[in-house]
Amino acid sequence: MKAILVGSGNVATHLAFALKDAGVEVVQVWSKHIGNAEILANQIGANAVETLSELYQNADFCIISVKDDAISSVTDELKDFKGVILHTSGSVNLDVFGKELEKYGVLYPLQTFSIKKEVDFKTIPICIEANTPEALKLIRHLAEKLSGKVVEINSDKRKILHLSAVFACNFTNHLYTLSEDLVASYGLDFDLLRPLILETASKVQHASPRDVQTGPAIRNDEQTIKKHEELLLKQPQLLTIYQTLSESIKKAKK
Amino acid sequence: MKAILVGSGNVATHLAFALKDAGVEVVQVWSKHIGNAEILANQIGANAVETLSELYQNADFCIISVKDDAISSVTDELKDFKGVILHTSGSVNLDVFGKELEKYGVLYPLQTFSIKKEVDFKTIPICIEANTPEALKLIRHLAEKLSGKVVEINSDKRKILHLSAVFACNFTNHLYTLSEDLVASYGLDFDLLRPLILETASKVQHASPRDVQTGPAIRNDEQTIKKHEELLLKQPQLLTIYQTLSESIKKAKK
Repeated sequence: MKAILVGSGNVATHLAFALKDAGVEVVQVWSKHIGNAEILANQIGANAVETLSELYQNADFCIISVKDDAISSVTDELKDFKGVILHTSGSVNLDVFGKELEKYGVLYPLQTFSIKKEVDFKTIPICIEANTPEALKLIRHLAEKLSGKVVEINSDKRKILHLSAVFACNFTNHLYTLSEDLVASYGLDFDLLRPLILETASKVQHASPRDVQTGPAIRNDEQTIKKHEELLLKQPQLLTIYQTLSESIKKAKK
Repeated sequence: MKAILVGSGNVATHLAFALKDAGVEVVQVWSKHIGNAEILANQIGANAVETLSELYQNADFCIISVKDDAISSVTDELKDFKGVILHTSGSVNLDVFGKELEKYGVLYPLQTFSIKKEVDFKTIPICIEANTPEALKLIRHLAEKLSGKVVEINSDKRKILHLSAVFACNFTNHLYTLSEDLVASYGLDFDLLRPLILETASKVQHASPRDVQTGPAIRNDEQTIKKHEELLLKQPQLLTIYQTLSESIKKAKK
């Protein structure tokens, strides 16, 4: 099985290594900046190509893993590709590929990727979608080489997953940042909060988060909430976040 | 080393087992409801007592682990206690104990506790504070039996830690709830988000959360943000949270 990879960012890089580990040969890597393509290609034994027209038209898959708004322009240059063209985005519709292509689809790995942090691809849910049953079968075959959790999800639902991931990942990470800033401003070490952060995430691996909610808001502990608000008086933005989320917790109570 | 335990809630229960494991003998348990005291006492080989006046006055420690606003009234009945009296609250000042007591302090385990979920107490940061160096020494000795991470933190800083924990734990768990509700409303399984949640928390165990922030807000990806806002038009409260946190992410950018 041969694939070509369009892109060299976080997702493309992690995917490249996962493909290699899964025995899929990535023959070429293209990136807007050839230097980035070369770095990634060298790491996985592929060739870097400078223009999209140089891409090997007979590979089984062309995996487009670039910024959402660049997918469409890249695709325009892949009209002669013989295999399955797919993108890896959570929020871009299947129909971005237009009707001139024969076999296309989506392979969306639902995870947060950072260049420096290794992840175990096998545990990552992969959402797949395709324009024909045949393309779907091929994409599923590829996805199942990468992960033990492959699900077919249409574009509308995938967008909801992507939005939910913003809440579950991007926003929670930002709350970690706010808590780090808060402790740092009092000379305290963020290490004190790290076990709590890990336990909070571990807890919901088997429970529903609603069932394990703790803290003053869920207890309607107005006295503590008032104390906290007083501590945040000089930080109006933090105060707004505190009040907005506390109200939301009270409303979400079972 | 002997201790008596006042309280039978989440923290008291986890603490009771940790004390037992650490070789500290919990001789008595008191609770507002004697039935709860009996359940906990039976599990750790202690006696349940019905009134505070029955408590063994010569134990080394009296650990008060009740609701914040009940600490003061419990303490009023412990004037004759000979050992060190301490509470386990993040947000209650040391001076809740008043001046009639000789040795008192705080032992605050910075973790989220649920009755059903076991935790490894050894990894939990414990914040300690005391009214005298002698009391501090005794509390440190006790705390170090329970955990490998014991730090002296005064009341003001402990309150900031407690507030930060609301952001890092209670609010993040609520974001998990919101994401669960969102996927459920489209018939999707929360299992799809669980690996993402765990990875998000794992990532910051060694990195600063600011350095690993991902998502549309940090990229200033207004197109995706707009799409997300449209998906939330019928859920004004979610939309407010989305916008508030996205703005905050942009402002926190390095």
